[in-house]
Amino acid sequence: MSVAKEVASANQAFVSSRKTGQLPLPPARKLTVLTCMDARIDPVAAFGIKEGDAHVIRNAGARAPDAVRSLVISQQLLGTDTILVIGHSDCGMLTFQTPQAREIVAKQQGSHLDSKGQAELDSLNFLEFPDLHSNVASDVAFLKSNTLIKPNTDISGWVYDVGSGKLSQVA
Amino acid sequence: MSVAKEVASANQAFVSSRKTGQLPLPPARKLTVLTCMDARIDPVAAFGIKEGDAHVIRNAGARAPDAVRSLVISQQLLGTDTILVIGHSDCGMLTFQTPQAREIVAKQQGSHLDSKGQAELDSLNFLEFPDLHSNVASDVAFLKSNTLIKPNTDISGWVYDVGSGKLSQVA
Repeated sequence: MSVAKEVASANQAFVSSRKTGQLPLPPARKLTVLTCMDARIDPVAAFGIKEGDAHVIRNAGARAPDAVRSLVISQQLLGTDTILVIGHSDCGMLTFQTPQAREIVAKQQGSHLDSKGQAELDSLNFLEFPDLHSNVASDVAFLKSNTLIKPNTDISGWVYDVGSGKLSQVA
Repeated sequence: MSVAKEVASANQAFVSSRKTGQLPLPPARKLTVLTCMDARIDPVAAFGIKEGDAHVIRNAGARAPDAVRSLVISQQLLGTDTILVIGHSDCGMLTFQTPQAREIVAKQQGSHLDSKGQAELDSLNFLEFPDLHSNVASDVAFLKSNTLIKPNTDISGWVYDVGSGKLSQVA
């Protein structure tokens, strides 16, 4: 069975046992979590946020500069006022740099890469970082100084340990 | 108690009861889920993906053009080969248009908005859409024609009903 079919099949079981009805669109706890796409992070379990509680934005590395559009929509159109930036241990973003990554992609895609794709690749900033803690602190500072973010937002930075599951505040 | 402190407290309970050790960095099922930041979507429960299984990318509206960086990293550096694009019913992205949204943000931020923020707002595309199903189909087509995506990727489009919890394939 394809992975897509497995997901559809798992969803059928979920629907059968589902008790929650439709919840309101704006997050009940006015919370936005910005974290990494990493497969080992389950925000519901690890951060105690239930369905309906919080917007969850996820990208490679939990990068704030790549999440401005979503954060503005979350805050300005849907009323959230707390932002947690959550990086994590063993992050893939610590393991490469943009120039190397561009070479890897070009090599792997080979002749499949057309001129449009090559142009997009040439300007793609992978937003990697050499140090986890300082990157979370830097992204928190980025948000605190960005005047598209609501002035009284509670913004904090955290690191999640993918081994122990422990969340520690770093900014 | 602040929401941030509530999250830290919930995490302490999670750590105490945690049984999973550290899992490998690359997703076990080579799956990437691209879905919306909406508070009513819990990918682990609704899509049957366990810790370690899949990258989960989330932004406002599950928009593929806003997820290229993360998708390239997921595929090219971490070996995933299936992408599910999952929009959902009652999405906030159906309720506004960029020009109005820019006005709302400018009005709400008032004198807090500096010239840098105003310039960023003037060029911010909110990536809203007027129709859910056609947008998911369009984002799937966008990925299928983007040559930065691996040629043999299994890419499909789905709509999640936030009331019933049901996932339906649309592309």
